[in-house]
Amino acid sequence: MASYEELAALVLEAIKEGGYLTQDSSSIPVGISNRHIHLSQGDLETLFGAGYQLTKTKDLSQPGQYACQETVIIAGPKGSIEKVRILGPVRSESQVEILQADCFKLGVKAPVKLSGDLAGTPGITLIGPKGSVYLNRGAMIAQRHIHMTLEDAGNLGVRDGEKVTIQIDGLRGGTYTNVVIRANSASSLEFHIDTEEANAMSLTSTSKITIVK
Amino acid sequence: MASYEELAALVLEAIKEGGYLTQDSSSIPVGISNRHIHLSQGDLETLFGAGYQLTKTKDLSQPGQYACQETVIIAGPKGSIEKVRILGPVRSESQVEILQADCFKLGVKAPVKLSGDLAGTPGITLIGPKGSVYLNRGAMIAQRHIHMTLEDAGNLGVRDGEKVTIQIDGLRGGTYTNVVIRANSASSLEFHIDTEEANAMSLTSTSKITIVK
Repeated sequence: MASYEELAALVLEAIKEGGYLTQDSSSIPVGISNRHIHLSQGDLETLFGAGYQLTKTKDLSQPGQYACQETVIIAGPKGSIEKVRILGPVRSESQVEILQADCFKLGVKAPVKLSGDLAGTPGITLIGPKGSVYLNRGAMIAQRHIHMTLEDAGNLGVRDGEKVTIQIDGLRGGTYTNVVIRANSASSLEFHIDTEEANAMSLTSTSKITIVK
Repeated sequence: MASYEELAALVLEAIKEGGYLTQDSSSIPVGISNRHIHLSQGDLETLFGAGYQLTKTKDLSQPGQYACQETVIIAGPKGSIEKVRILGPVRSESQVEILQADCFKLGVKAPVKLSGDLAGTPGITLIGPKGSVYLNRGAMIAQRHIHMTLEDAGNLGVRDGEKVTIQIDGLRGGTYTNVVIRANSASSLEFHIDTEEANAMSLTSTSKITIVK
């Protein structure tokens, strides 16, 4: 029969594994993005037909953002990738966020950029059920960032646009530098990385990270 | 016409990009591994036929190790991946080194382990042109490590088995902890990571890293 100490250790382990304890009050949830696309209404209609409207399937953590039923094929000079998810709502300009591994497969040299900053990004082809479009620009690897409210920023001692370092514990732990703070009045606190960044550090959607600056 | 300062900056940039300058004398070359397989002679013969011998196509940086012409399909309960490269020479037991993304695709929960340490690793199916085999164990995500000679270890102030932290500069920079030193008499100095770890930090085969401990 286990001693009281062993029993206590087992109970504590169960509590920790169940996510009932967080390391400290400044820990931040992790949001992991696979490759995805934001479309303009014009490009959406070229790909899916005149007057087409996106079909929401799931709300995302950031207010007003959602995953759609629609997917397209993306293509570059070296290859293509099928079933790339579209996120809504539509934006003023289309943008394709891909992984570094996708860049090799597609033959597209996408730079690491903050979402929305399309200057200097290369073109890419999108193929939908009703047509295809060559975007003159818009392929990027999303720069890791943390969404938060201005109140969160105050509590965490950071400001919008600041670059911080975040720390990840564990066997595949380490730090990521140049994580951009994106603070505004309507954001949900979340550290955004892509699947390769998550996998490299064994992060999952239930992980929490801390800012170390 | 460019000023002397602009010209000097351009020349310096070209020199840096060409890899003619390293940051300091302790910088370490980077070796990036995609998913791959080491086979036992028995499993090789099950997959490719009795008496089969591997066909070397390229020497790898570690002495005696080489990439082979042969590939197989790997499969788990959720999916399969084609054209997974076999590395030679054959070993005493088969081992399948996969990415975290592959684990999700295959439905195989491979732990992060040092190559050769198969205790507790899950099974996986291999399909070759002449037969298939279910390995009772051997699926793992390779733990990042640095190969070096004992002389290198002395010069770098580390010892075999020690875990160090390595630092990566740049926009997608940071640190990786728990990097295991593997020092012996017949190794070539190289930091080994998989493609997801490389992509997460924008590392390529021409990158150099430093140990910060």
